[in-house]
Amino acid sequence: MKLATFEVKTAVGPVERIGAVAETAEDEDTSAGQATLVDLTAAYGAALEAEGEPEPADLARARVPPEMIAFLERGDRAIDDARDALEYAAETDAKRGPGGAIIRYEPGEYDLLAPLPRPNSLRDFMAIEEHVQNSMDGEIDDVWYELPVYYKGNADSVVAPGETIQWPAYSSIMDYELEIAAVIGKRGRDIPADEAEEYIAGYTVFNDFSARDIQGREMKGRLGPAKGKDFANGLGPYFVPADDIDVLEAPMTARIDGEVWSEGTVDEMYHSFADIIEHVSQSETLHPGDVIGSGTVGEGCGLELGKWLEDGSTVELEIEGIGTLEHTVVE
Amino acid sequence: MKLATFEVKTAVGPVERIGAVAETAEDEDTSAGQATLVDLTAAYGAALEAEGEPEPADLARARVPPEMIAFLERGDRAIDDARDALEYAAETDAKRGPGGAIIRYEPGEYDLLAPLPRPNSLRDFMAIEEHVQNSMDGEIDDVWYELPVYYKGNADSVVAPGETIQWPAYSSIMDYELEIAAVIGKRGRDIPADEAEEYIAGYTVFNDFSARDIQGREMKGRLGPAKGKDFANGLGPYFVPADDIDVLEAPMTARIDGEVWSEGTVDEMYHSFADIIEHVSQSETLHPGDVIGSGTVGEGCGLELGKWLEDGSTVELEIEGIGTLEHTVVE
Repeated sequence: MKLATFEVKTAVGPVERIGAVAETAEDEDTSAGQATLVDLTAAYGAALEAEGEPEPADLARARVPPEMIAFLERGDRAIDDARDALEYAAETDAKRGPGGAIIRYEPGEYDLLAPLPRPNSLRDFMAIEEHVQNSMDGEIDDVWYELPVYYKGNADSVVAPGETIQWPAYSSIMDYELEIAAVIGKRGRDIPADEAEEYIAGYTVFNDFSARDIQGREMKGRLGPAKGKDFANGLGPYFVPADDIDVLEAPMTARIDGEVWSEGTVDEMYHSFADIIEHVSQSETLHPGDVIGSGTVGEGCGLELGKWLEDGSTVELEIEGIGTLEHTVVE
Repeated sequence: MKLATFEVKTAVGPVERIGAVAETAEDEDTSAGQATLVDLTAAYGAALEAEGEPEPADLARARVPPEMIAFLERGDRAIDDARDALEYAAETDAKRGPGGAIIRYEPGEYDLLAPLPRPNSLRDFMAIEEHVQNSMDGEIDDVWYELPVYYKGNADSVVAPGETIQWPAYSSIMDYELEIAAVIGKRGRDIPADEAEEYIAGYTVFNDFSARDIQGREMKGRLGPAKGKDFANGLGPYFVPADDIDVLEAPMTARIDGEVWSEGTVDEMYHSFADIIEHVSQSETLHPGDVIGSGTVGEGCGLELGKWLEDGSTVELEIEGIGTLEHTVVE
């Protein structure tokens, strides 16, 4: 199942909904454009209505909330209900659910947003040794092997799939980073690594756009990256439940203007997502909607390859089983 | 005016409200305990009711929302309405507003929360040269003078005034940092320094608790502090509108178990709040409820003084015109 957040134009203004790629569309090559989406709240309501539930719209909103963080807060139950809704949508001839809510949107009938348009938080790690070796001047400090180091990104700077990114005026070195992000689905604190998987709702593609010139300068101030990272975070196009993807084996590819620049998997992670969750959750509470970036795969950014994005470059990050996240950068 | 977020126990569970220190109480020494608080939404509703407004409770909730970020989103208008509410509360004999909402709470009748229990975001700077000189091994990098460097804190780790802080098990070097925080009250992007003041709603005291051992280790990983800072952020006790405080001149004091350890002002800031806002808002949108820490005043933490907090130490940070923020740390 591939979950999405999308926006529909209505008479009362744009309305945000959550959906899933229709089963008929899952097998198609949708990398070039939009897929058919099932509105999960509407489809779940239609299923309840068919069963004779007297208040199907209200109950559907409570069980399949049309906002991703509220949806995640329901944990595994929301994922199960979403699967039921998707199955019902595949079987029914009905076009609309309770209150006349449309069940199915064809390409062009909606705007795709990031699955988490505004995550609760964004932590980005640097867990893959090859990337660190390639990016650093000099030797890797011992601490890198001892702890999963990370910085916190700007959760307000998530860009939608397909969005054109205006590069900041203060930078002229434009780079991407090929990462996978785990999305927390359950509140927790002091989580042992061997229980950490329960806290991961699923995964999405993460493009940690990086303004290398300012990043290099500001990191000399010893407080980590900020303006070098915080102007744009690409997440999407879909959010895939943990059960539906073998995250360590999923092939990851970055294409710039159609040419493959990076390939890899996060099987190379020195610190696993489980170890990361154990580390971060010590004396800190994790919340549904927290996003954890893996760090860049080896040779997963221009910095490692000695080449940069140009004005008008299109960056496609693809993770098999999730989809292709595409953005264009302009100066 | 000193604004607060507080929580009241009710028959249907705890309810969060916003308030202001009652005018009669403003002159009293309230550092040792709670002040009398006016429930601003209730008082504003009472004033509307007295004027004959047919739906005073609904209108009061819309104009003086009982949640601080929603309140800040109304900008200067909310501050003006809060002043009117406080003035009405000082004049009326009424005990309750529309719907029977209590107007005035005496000490012990409420729990004081941080004025922003969950800020939209938390950026902490290092804008005071003396602190940087005292904290660094070796020379300050040139970049510190060129840019206001910062890291982003954990907005989910705000502790209430008076709360006892359980020090993380992974650390045994316990420190405080004496800072003032500016609170953003208006959405903005690419804000020039000479317009930045319009975006600051007000100020509060900020204790950037620091676990120095882990902080020192993880910062060698070059991504800035994380576990060294993210377990506890003290904000409060009150939030004071920008017009009500001369922030550069306000005396700041840290007392540990009653003994003065640190004194200073943020007049020493090398990068002003206006310069910081100009820098951060380049290609990034600031939102109401974003918190910006000044950085520690010179000799404003144990690291600079060569001494640390102990198990059971009580830390009081006082800023004249705002109040005293007190926490106890335990191992």
